[in-house]
Amino acid sequence: MAEPRISSIDGRLAEEFAVPSHIEEVKGKMSAFATHHAAAGHRVVLITSGGTKVPLESRTVRFLDNFSSGSRGACSAEYFIESGYAVIFLHRHRSLYPYTRTLSTINILDALQVRGEADGAGNFGEVVVNQQVLPNITKVLKKYQEVKDNRLLLPIEFTTLSEYLHLLKAAAQALSTIGNKAMFYLAAAVSDFYIPASEMPEHKIQSSDGPLQLSLNMVPKILSPLVKDWAPQAFVISFKLETDATILLEKARRALSTYRHQVVVANILDSRRGYVLVVTPSTQTELILAQEDIQNKLEIEERIVSNLTSAHSKFITEQVGL
Amino acid sequence: MAEPRISSIDGRLAEEFAVPSHIEEVKGKMSAFATHHAAAGHRVVLITSGGTKVPLESRTVRFLDNFSSGSRGACSAEYFIESGYAVIFLHRHRSLYPYTRTLSTINILDALQVRGEADGAGNFGEVVVNQQVLPNITKVLKKYQEVKDNRLLLPIEFTTLSEYLHLLKAAAQALSTIGNKAMFYLAAAVSDFYIPASEMPEHKIQSSDGPLQLSLNMVPKILSPLVKDWAPQAFVISFKLETDATILLEKARRALSTYRHQVVVANILDSRRGYVLVVTPSTQTELILAQEDIQNKLEIEERIVSNLTSAHSKFITEQVGL
Repeated sequence: MAEPRISSIDGRLAEEFAVPSHIEEVKGKMSAFATHHAAAGHRVVLITSGGTKVPLESRTVRFLDNFSSGSRGACSAEYFIESGYAVIFLHRHRSLYPYTRTLSTINILDALQVRGEADGAGNFGEVVVNQQVLPNITKVLKKYQEVKDNRLLLPIEFTTLSEYLHLLKAAAQALSTIGNKAMFYLAAAVSDFYIPASEMPEHKIQSSDGPLQLSLNMVPKILSPLVKDWAPQAFVISFKLETDATILLEKARRALSTYRHQVVVANILDSRRGYVLVVTPSTQTELILAQEDIQNKLEIEERIVSNLTSAHSKFITEQVGL
Repeated sequence: MAEPRISSIDGRLAEEFAVPSHIEEVKGKMSAFATHHAAAGHRVVLITSGGTKVPLESRTVRFLDNFSSGSRGACSAEYFIESGYAVIFLHRHRSLYPYTRTLSTINILDALQVRGEADGAGNFGEVVVNQQVLPNITKVLKKYQEVKDNRLLLPIEFTTLSEYLHLLKAAAQALSTIGNKAMFYLAAAVSDFYIPASEMPEHKIQSSDGPLQLSLNMVPKILSPLVKDWAPQAFVISFKLETDATILLEKARRALSTYRHQVVVANILDSRRGYVLVVTPSTQTELILAQEDIQNKLEIEERIVSNLTSAHSKFITEQVGL
């Protein structure tokens, strides 16, 4: 497999994918966040999370999407913060969010109760959380507020593939200033295919025109310039989701040799909550949750994050000796 | 345009789209709900809401989707209930939900506060809603609870196109028992295209295979058997979303003459929150929110629902004379 030409990837990004209008503002925020936390002795991880939307029409009614609730990214963000990292959370709009994710399985109105009555003087009854419905709410809320008070989480949203690509580039450039203290944890489910703006119909495709033939181009592999050009000192983890277990390890190894980054976290769609394979150029480690662990509500992200923060420490230490 | 052959649509539904395993259970629930409310003198509206997911692989990583937050459907459900209807809310999993939709623009944890401290005896502090962040929460919560207590809302979820199609058919059959007291308000954004199970790859499509060619079949137009066979006495409204205003009215008229139902609510993507065109075989009525109305937080769904409930009354009255 020929190595992607980096200069052409940077060029394609500029030409074929619309630049979000707020890109410079967001880049400034990420840069200030990274500098501030590095000065305070924190490491900084950029987490990408959720799927990307690929429009089929420029006034978009239809789009291609990738399966991802954002659970892996949102959950991992919490464990990275527990481990002392500051987190830039680059996530799909409306995908799962750290801390809030624990409320996502219920309708919040089922957990609220009005207490007291309006007194006619503009004071309404109080609304309290029923802690039988949400038993962990005080714990979750206190953590959330602590993280907010200490500004340990910088949320950035994307919806389309174009936004994702440009925001990731901006993040990489913003984090390059803190060298090997930066980690990239690329858990988003990014489309491999897209329709270039020049080939896209403006209006909604009409079903009366008959069956639909779509021809999609390949999305540039931006892991390549990220590792080589944009943040060459950083510790970089990519994810590989497959449905076929027989090709998983080979695909992970091939990604490492193509992009020359540090780690691939590989997983299978059906077992992703209980099994991952952490692959580095010289090792492969299985992380597994047993049935008992799952009953005890342990999360595999705790083990993934523990494994990677140790590896990041080692990566930093080894470079001191160079 | 040739009229679709109904028998073949029913057949295609059974052959090409996987039947959800809980279909009979859901049909039973919808049927009991309709019978109960019709006996209590209520009319019943089936609202469909949100977009459909069309898998590109049988172990699905990638899918085609339709733009829809579910705002139109969720909002309309509230106004139908205000107008005395009982509502079956057939909606995309995680799309906007009646009442709860008003909390969707904030992170709920930003609206909660812990008050008091844990006392060590297992009693934790209370968690209360900050009503400066959510000024309407008591009103919304009381309405939500009233609707729940009176069982005026039956929520049914779908994710894929297959689930949607089979659940809509089941709903139509369940509602056929209450004749013209039933309304169908088909606001979901349903895909026009799909890949039949027989032509779908099992595993994740590999990007290393190069650019992607997709060939999608046309989804059967089930409005046709719904109107003719499944619920022939019901009052049926379909929606038409276009991006090109010049073809809107013509498309609405063509749908009415093809399917022979009662109303098309037609709208343009960019202006859908402030403008719709309500088209019947003999009339066309523009509903418009002025700038001032929008500032006063009026919702166009209030006018759509008002227009349609009147039309439904007239429809029922006219049939008495037949």
